[in-house]
Amino acid sequence: MNKLSKADKYYIAGFLDGDGCINAQIVKRPDYKLKFQIRVYISFYQKTKHHWFLLWLQEKCKYGLIRKRNDGMSEYTITGIDSVYNILKELEPMVRIKKPQLKLVLQIIKELPKAKDPQTFLTLCESVDRFEQLNYSKKREIKSETVRSILVN
Amino acid sequence: MNKLSKADKYYIAGFLDGDGCINAQIVKRPDYKLKFQIRVYISFYQKTKHHWFLLWLQEKCKYGLIRKRNDGMSEYTITGIDSVYNILKELEPMVRIKKPQLKLVLQIIKELPKAKDPQTFLTLCESVDRFEQLNYSKKREIKSETVRSILVN
Repeated sequence: MNKLSKADKYYIAGFLDGDGCINAQIVKRPDYKLKFQIRVYISFYQKTKHHWFLLWLQEKCKYGLIRKRNDGMSEYTITGIDSVYNILKELEPMVRIKKPQLKLVLQIIKELPKAKDPQTFLTLCESVDRFEQLNYSKKREIKSETVRSILVN
Repeated sequence: MNKLSKADKYYIAGFLDGDGCINAQIVKRPDYKLKFQIRVYISFYQKTKHHWFLLWLQEKCKYGLIRKRNDGMSEYTITGIDSVYNILKELEPMVRIKKPQLKLVLQIIKELPKAKDPQTFLTLCESVDRFEQLNYSKKREIKSETVRSILVN
């Protein structure tokens, strides 16, 4: 498990509150028993001019991938339950504005291993729906309603 | 002079890099000898839902004013040479992405007291022009060219 310095934790928490995103989404997985997967992630966007900054952040966090998009933006995303959990646990005491998203992702991660049956998984998908409001995100592609229509009928 | 804790400095520098703005602008002052003034400022914007966060930031920084705009956004602005100088000097070692803007504002503040004659003032106004590129800001209202046309002819 990586250990950020105290200074880095405060700086990264501030940056995350200002310009980062803590999120969860439902993605299609036709080959999964439950047909869907809950994906949790932390992401940062910067003009590619500041790509060096995302490289620095990645070096600190020790997880995640950076890609240059073709619209002049660079995107750094940390995904995967363990990576997201480890980073968020380190930043938890310092994060302010995005504390609700942080808590909700941690809760989802905690409950995911138990969500083996459709009903429990669906309840967790409903938690994922809450990110739409928390992150003011544009209409989400897959909501718990979609999952329900496939799994429960 | 206020003294932020080390933790607060790192957090605020991170937040400033993510979502803050370090800027300078030229404003009209018909009653001034040089007809214009250079205004330096640090600003933060948040949805008014997060107004509490700007209040916290203001309590930490001990300078500046917050206003609720009528578009659902709140704005926290620190202006005035001394206030901006004090805050930026405290955050200087921690700021990363916005270091160029920070350095340029500090340089402008240092040179402002010497800019009593039109030519020296104009040179400083040209430094202010550079914020257009540094901050990717929309076309600036008053540029050094305007000052030149009024002061030098």
